[in-house]
Amino acid sequence: MTDYPPTDRTRVRRLPDRGHYDRETIYAILDEALVCHVAFVEDGRPFVIPTLHARVGDALLLHGAPASRLLKHLAAGGEVSVAATIADGLVLAKSVFHHSVNYRSVVLFGHGAPVEGDAAKLAALEAFTEKLLPGRWSEARVPNAAELKATAVIRVAIEEASAKIRTGGPKDDPEDLALDVWAGVIPLSLVRGEPVVY
Amino acid sequence: MTDYPPTDRTRVRRLPDRGHYDRETIYAILDEALVCHVAFVEDGRPFVIPTLHARVGDALLLHGAPASRLLKHLAAGGEVSVAATIADGLVLAKSVFHHSVNYRSVVLFGHGAPVEGDAAKLAALEAFTEKLLPGRWSEARVPNAAELKATAVIRVAIEEASAKIRTGGPKDDPEDLALDVWAGVIPLSLVRGEPVVY
Repeated sequence: MTDYPPTDRTRVRRLPDRGHYDRETIYAILDEALVCHVAFVEDGRPFVIPTLHARVGDALLLHGAPASRLLKHLAAGGEVSVAATIADGLVLAKSVFHHSVNYRSVVLFGHGAPVEGDAAKLAALEAFTEKLLPGRWSEARVPNAAELKATAVIRVAIEEASAKIRTGGPKDDPEDLALDVWAGVIPLSLVRGEPVVY
Repeated sequence: MTDYPPTDRTRVRRLPDRGHYDRETIYAILDEALVCHVAFVEDGRPFVIPTLHARVGDALLLHGAPASRLLKHLAAGGEVSVAATIADGLVLAKSVFHHSVNYRSVVLFGHGAPVEGDAAKLAALEAFTEKLLPGRWSEARVPNAAELKATAVIRVAIEEASAKIRTGGPKDDPEDLALDVWAGVIPLSLVRGEPVVY
């Protein structure tokens, strides 16, 4: 599927088998990744910032203090490139050259627009809260008027996007397979531990 | 300490207590983070790409296929902004507004320069390999001449950098503390599982 037709910026050119352009694959990665990295251009120079995100439909939601550099850029309609990456494993090959990482990543492009109005902002904040911990919105105290005012919410319509995925074991050259070197994958996972009360 | 004096781009303005400017803090985060996100400007537009990195001294090393968009930009001396982020916990407050994440992140700026010569490239690849798994360089087959040629290595001198760290429990407003809502932190950690052989 190619819900997001590959563009010059999103086509996975090297190792094209790793490229995916369907909503299902792209959105699953965005939904699982806790943090994304948002890049923008300021005075012609690159700037990247880590932040939380939530995806609703075909848009990515971002939020923060209204005075933040990134949110001001987005509220003014500025363009961003956003990447979300999940590391799944260390790939240890018999040759250093074929060492790699199993991962799932998305790179997308879009322009920002402010989410305005209390109802729309509340719906966005519900999406952030439910992404952190499903069910949490109905447990915690929801934002009041002052808190809503202190929170800028931005909608980035996903204009171009692709996913890139590596899975499986090391891909050594045939002539290296007989080497007496352990090869395989060390799986990685982001694990939630026992809750801590302060 | 302020080994990297805060600049207009790296000073943590909101919640300044979270900002750190010393090498020890910044480098520990870069060294622990498996992946970084590199932002650059192409035709005036932002582009961010996830990639592996290794830090050696006051520089970040990146590598990849010589034809890659990012590596060509860097080999030509282009500027990048790089972020590395480690998520440490979900912060669940009594109010939605104070929900947060515990994290350690670095944002840095620098210009690329190619690492040239087989000895320098081998030393860089050793740093990447040892970062993935200490001791691995002496186990796996080291790169041959053709593999070295097929690998571009870039050095980004760290020109500006800051770390941002949030730790500890939720910071609810006093009037919310009596609410009957569970509050605390769910720790997160990137765990290495049992090795898998293919």
